Amino acid sequence: MDISKASAKARELVERVEAFICEEVIPYEKDPRNHGHGPSEDLVRELRARARAAGLLAPQLPKEWGGYGLSHTETAAVFRASGYSPLGPVAMNIMAPDEGNMHLLEKVATVEQKERFLRPLADGTARSAFLMTEPDGGAGSDPSMMKTVAVERDGEWIISGRKWLITGAEGASVGIIMAKTGDKATMFLIDMETPGMQIERILDTIDNSMPGGHAVINLVDVRVPADQVLGAVDEGFKYAQVRLAPARLTHCMRWWGTAKRSHDIASRYACNRQAFGKALVEHEGVGFMLADNEIELKQAELMIDWCASVLDDGKLGTVESSMAKVAVSEALFRVVDRCVQVLGGLGVTRDTVVEQAFREIRAFRIYDGPSEVHRWSLAKGVKHRYKDRTATAANPA
Amino acid sequence: MDISKASAKARELVERVEAFICEEVIPYEKDPRNHGHGPSEDLVRELRARARAAGLLAPQLPKEWGGYGLSHTETAAVFRASGYSPLGPVAMNIMAPDEGNMHLLEKVATVEQKERFLRPLADGTARSAFLMTEPDGGAGSDPSMMKTVAVERDGEWIISGRKWLITGAEGASVGIIMAKTGDKATMFLIDMETPGMQIERILDTIDNSMPGGHAVINLVDVRVPADQVLGAVDEGFKYAQVRLAPARLTHCMRWWGTAKRSHDIASRYACNRQAFGKALVEHEGVGFMLADNEIELKQAELMIDWCASVLDDGKLGTVESSMAKVAVSEALFRVVDRCVQVLGGLGVTRDTVVEQAFREIRAFRIYDGPSEVHRWSLAKGVKHRYKDRTATAANPA
Amino acid sequence: MDISKASAKARELVERVEAFICEEVIPYEKDPRNHGHGPSEDLVRELRARARAAGLLAPQLPKEWGGYGLSHTETAAVFRASGYSPLGPVAMNIMAPDEGNMHLLEKVATVEQKERFLRPLADGTARSAFLMTEPDGGAGSDPSMMKTVAVERDGEWIISGRKWLITGAEGASVGIIMAKTGDKATMFLIDMETPGMQIERILDTIDNSMPGGHAVINLVDVRVPADQVLGAVDEGFKYAQVRLAPARLTHCMRWWGTAKRSHDIASRYACNRQAFGKALVEHEGVGFMLADNEIELKQAELMIDWCASVLDDGKLGTVESSMAKVAVSEALFRVVDRCVQVLGGLGVTRDTVVEQAFREIRAFRIYDGPSEVHRWSLAKGVKHRYKDRTATAANPA
Amino acid sequence: MDISKASAKARELVERVEAFICEEVIPYEKDPRNHGHGPSEDLVRELRARARAAGLLAPQLPKEWGGYGLSHTETAAVFRASGYSPLGPVAMNIMAPDEGNMHLLEKVATVEQKERFLRPLADGTARSAFLMTEPDGGAGSDPSMMKTVAVERDGEWIISGRKWLITGAEGASVGIIMAKTGDKATMFLIDMETPGMQIERILDTIDNSMPGGHAVINLVDVRVPADQVLGAVDEGFKYAQVRLAPARLTHCMRWWGTAKRSHDIASRYACNRQAFGKALVEHEGVGFMLADNEIELKQAELMIDWCASVLDDGKLGTVESSMAKVAVSEALFRVVDRCVQVLGGLGVTRDTVVEQAFREIRAFRIYDGPSEVHRWSLAKGVKHRYKDRTATAANPA
Repeated sequence: MDISKASAKARELVERVEAFICEEVIPYEKDPRNHGHGPSEDLVRELRARARAAGLLAPQLPKEWGGYGLSHTETAAVFRASGYSPLGPVAMNIMAPDEGNMHLLEKVATVEQKERFLRPLADGTARSAFLMTEPDGGAGSDPSMMKTVAVERDGEWIISGRKWLITGAEGASVGIIMAKTGDKATMFLIDMETPGMQIERILDTIDNSMPGGHAVINLVDVRVPADQVLGAVDEGFKYAQVRLAPARLTHCMRWWGTAKRSHDIASRYACNRQAFGKALVEHEGVGFMLADNEIELKQAELMIDWCASVLDDGKLGTVESSMAKVAVSEALFRVVDRCVQVLGGLGVTRDTVVEQAFREIRAFRIYDGPSEVHRWSLAKGVKHRYKDRTATAANPA
Repeated sequence: MDISKASAKARELVERVEAFICEEVIPYEKDPRNHGHGPSEDLVRELRARARAAGLLAPQLPKEWGGYGLSHTETAAVFRASGYSPLGPVAMNIMAPDEGNMHLLEKVATVEQKERFLRPLADGTARSAFLMTEPDGGAGSDPSMMKTVAVERDGEWIISGRKWLITGAEGASVGIIMAKTGDKATMFLIDMETPGMQIERILDTIDNSMPGGHAVINLVDVRVPADQVLGAVDEGFKYAQVRLAPARLTHCMRWWGTAKRSHDIASRYACNRQAFGKALVEHEGVGFMLADNEIELKQAELMIDWCASVLDDGKLGTVESSMAKVAVSEALFRVVDRCVQVLGGLGVTRDTVVEQAFREIRAFRIYDGPSEVHRWSLAKGVKHRYKDRTATAANPA
Repeated sequence: MDISKASAKARELVERVEAFICEEVIPYEKDPRNHGHGPSEDLVRELRARARAAGLLAPQLPKEWGGYGLSHTETAAVFRASGYSPLGPVAMNIMAPDEGNMHLLEKVATVEQKERFLRPLADGTARSAFLMTEPDGGAGSDPSMMKTVAVERDGEWIISGRKWLITGAEGASVGIIMAKTGDKATMFLIDMETPGMQIERILDTIDNSMPGGHAVINLVDVRVPADQVLGAVDEGFKYAQVRLAPARLTHCMRWWGTAKRSHDIASRYACNRQAFGKALVEHEGVGFMLADNEIELKQAELMIDWCASVLDDGKLGTVESSMAKVAVSEALFRVVDRCVQVLGGLGVTRDTVVEQAFREIRAFRIYDGPSEVHRWSLAKGVKHRYKDRTATAANPA
Repeated sequence: MDISKASAKARELVERVEAFICEEVIPYEKDPRNHGHGPSEDLVRELRARARAAGLLAPQLPKEWGGYGLSHTETAAVFRASGYSPLGPVAMNIMAPDEGNMHLLEKVATVEQKERFLRPLADGTARSAFLMTEPDGGAGSDPSMMKTVAVERDGEWIISGRKWLITGAEGASVGIIMAKTGDKATMFLIDMETPGMQIERILDTIDNSMPGGHAVINLVDVRVPADQVLGAVDEGFKYAQVRLAPARLTHCMRWWGTAKRSHDIASRYACNRQAFGKALVEHEGVGFMLADNEIELKQAELMIDWCASVLDDGKLGTVESSMAKVAVSEALFRVVDRCVQVLGGLGVTRDTVVEQAFREIRAFRIYDGPSEVHRWSLAKGVKHRYKDRTATAANPA
């Protein structure tokens, strides 16, 4: 990663994060507690204690919430460094969905809500869940199909429905529920222990980096006091956008680091493993794959930084983050796929972290909007910009 | 799968296999015993009892070994049908490495060796392992780098070395060891209980369809009587070729079935799941992926049948099976990758078999020679055929 | 090309065609008359005289029309051989659009129409055009948008409209016009000299293998006698299908030969040209490209033969020919693109035929339906077959 | 193109260039003089007169040579704008090979050499050629295979050899010859009219944007005075590197503009052309292609700017320009290939500039080093950086 143009603050943080990940986090990767649906709560606590001691807990947050007040561009450099281990973002408390939830709460919640719900998240002592997606033909890529409903009664809201693929729900104390209120949607803050919040099962999934895994949750007449509405009633879809663009981008940042790690592993292997009379890297069939990795990692880095600079300019970045999500997720997948291939038999074993990187980044191509939804949205932008523009001096055929 | 041109025998068998897989095998997929490194021994026994009852155990074998004496082309149709569940080939006793080992024994072993080692395999009561690949810079794609050695002493052979990625070793009773004898190599038949055969660990791997998983094995002065040499001394690399070409191709056949299953699941989902006002399949972004799947499944089927017909003509099929391995493994991977994408969030969960298919077929791109080794070998063929051919009437520029 | 399974008749013809192309056709490739929009009329005559002398004029035709009565499968082998030079199909009178037009006439025309319009085509003394596609937002991939209309008046038809990309129109004597008759369409046979048939211009295009190039034609009140309706009134779209499936496939056959030629040229070059201390082919970056070429040429050959066998079974082959068109046109383009790359600077010059092959096959990805239209049609087939199929024993999830 | 972060000078120039290209250059695209191997000398003069009047001749040059003294980053923005027509860089006198030759002369030539050879180039009144590549197994991607030799005799140099693909030689007055001097190489400045400089023929090539096309030249005992050695004797390969990195990058800049133009044309077409009941752009099969174009154009722009910033930092940029050349040339080719596809039949005609863009950018994937040579060079970098690095805290496995 090229940090030569980064701010002094970012450069200093990146160096500290790199050392922290390599010296303190990576040794935990083979810890037996880093198995199952995600790292165990116990392991998460231990890792976070180390990050706290290193002064690296949620560094992107504003200073009043314990961070260093990083710009999006600075965040990009730091988060990429954190992802050098899949456990890095967990340790530093910047993993999805917590990182995006903190961002949303910081932007939208009231002072009291922040004290109650954001404080423990920012401290790294609690975890959170974002309850939006649904099974059974409900809300997926198309949020308008949401089936979970909230109705107001006697000054409180009653929420009923079913959610799935709810990351981190098992073990979380804070939840943000998205529910239909009429033909609009509203967000609600919830204590996950509230009666009616029933975790049906934890899904077996291809990935296993996120604490708590991904749950199916039944919401059975969950009662939410009026002061736990997040922001304004009926504005849920708007807030979802506030959360989504940066959340997509921080995914890109973190997984970039994991892909870079995979590339480093594959490159070292290719330089030291012999076959047919020379090192693997001297076989062009292998060397070209590693060359393509270097090109694609650089392109992904540039896309992330470009999109971050758009967010730093105060723009919503919907188009830019869609472009970055498609380009980066697909590029990183090709990178880790090549790494698996370069490692050969070793690549399909868990003896290196590349096997996990491959699985995680496959899932990333779907989380936060599959590529197809983003392309669909970008194509609508093309239509909007080019429709009815006929050949003129400025737009010749 | 188009079986209209298949023989009557093959057509009848395919129909029986299809019914067997759908009615008797698929219900076991969510059996808790189908977890961990591979289906448990207990599950394997139960599945094989059902296949035995259905008359579908190792149907490709010659009649004297309990099969129907199928040609390679007939085998292709039957094996593709078996792969419709990842458990299908296990149930029918045609999974790697047993299927390839039986083929090799049938071609090369003595009458006594067959009775002792092939009989229990053909009966489906025992499992086997093929001990060729090595860790620590030993034999991988380049078998000449083999470090395991066998030395003759007092009428028996003493084998020392280390093997890894040895599929099915845990739980197997029959082993075939490949070891260096001078600068040549020799194959040895072994009872896996022989002293000195030490399973060091079972690797965690991306795939989990093969009983026993993939082991690391230390060979510590393993003593093998002279009559357990398989074929002639020093002819090991030649026999490896006898085993490899058809073994590569049966991999293609089996995983074709699993990719077809994935496509069926994704297609039904795309037809029934709505988003943005219409069924997914009506979005070209999804429909085109399914169209490409149909094209690639057909091409893969044609490549398999073509290569099988070459083997049926009595040829070794080295070039053809390399071409088929590259083309089919890469095509099937694209197919299952698209299926994951079409299923969206569902695709990354184990709620359908697609998630497993994706992982298995990723590994298949490496097993039996990664694509790069086959391309390297095909390029040597190009060099051989075109070198020094100058422009003539028959070969104009 | 593997002709080992072909009929004796096909094998013998293929050998004669191979010799004819190499010895008599290829020397004409650098003839100055093989420039401009296509080979000149004079060159066409000269080439056809040679093919006639060799007994190789339109060999696929029924015997009563001077051919050998080849099946589609036999035609595939012969046409692939013909395409080894872009001038081969022109010489043998099996180039588009004549070959497809002869096929259509032979299936649909009356005895009198055949004598007048098919006879000179089958003799190779005349050329023909198929007037379907239109400019200005008219009929392209979607024929229902056709703007050209035919109205009946006093026992004859008056046709008005504008056609473009009409291959071979300049120099053709026979035309088949597709025009709207109400909300249906009808085909008309026409003498291209008929008053009102005005060639507006010959388009400059990326390809230049077809005599006459591609024209824009104004149809100004063109009068056609009732006995020149081809087949029944209002059945034009149906006949278009009769013409299309085999026409798509013969395109695949001919361009396969040109791609094979390109591969032969690139392979010889790679074996004889040195760089960085060894022959190009020994660089894996080059050798792998040639290996992929061999794989894709084989797959394309198998797809063509499979689709031809479906047509030989008497089926319409709409789905199969769409699959073949997409797969073969895209595969052949990748093949010639790699050939250009392997040749380096030489590849972008007209010093070898590869440069033309690249341009022609780029156009082929659009002619007879761009890939997207075929994928769209295949996706509709997926929808039709999978819709409402729920999980059953035969169709499990 | 996003110029929001560009300098005020660059922004102002970009706007002027955009207007100049659209209003004054594009109308010449269909001029009959813009045919054959490249735009005619007469057309070049006329275009340059317009650029001179607009103050846009070679704007990147230092002020003493009549330019605005642009940084590489500023040059990137301006050159991208110039490429919006293939005639733009010709008009502005920033086309290859002149632009790279001027850069080289400005860096290496003596004061006297600059006055004699650079002055007329900078004025736009003369054209130049760079004579490096050779036919017949000589220097191509591997310059060490150079066969042209220069020997010193009586205070002057005698050069003998054969060069090919010499862009712009026909009509050029200034040449830079690269010739072997012993086992090193030296560059020589030459008046193209010097006896012994024999243009053998102009090659027919896939591209036709460069005045003079590409020539084959025989050097028959060409006599060059000692004061026409460019830089030091035996340092030719070093100067070639000085020329190459920025020359590669300016190619990327110019063709970016042409690809952007193609995308604008295809997008407008897709928004206004109907098929199957809606605008093409509303078909995801088309809309997704245009979305991918927007992503890839953005990525290409970012890569160019990143590499330009490395050059602005005073580094040689060999690795970075190799990465940019591969990534940008391949991305732009995919962009124009998609544009051809979106335009359908129109795309393969010369009715829009897209057809030419497709041909030119295909050649660009080979000019200035085919992708494979750059990947080979990048793989060597991987080897250099990762070799012998074992797993440490900073470089864990």
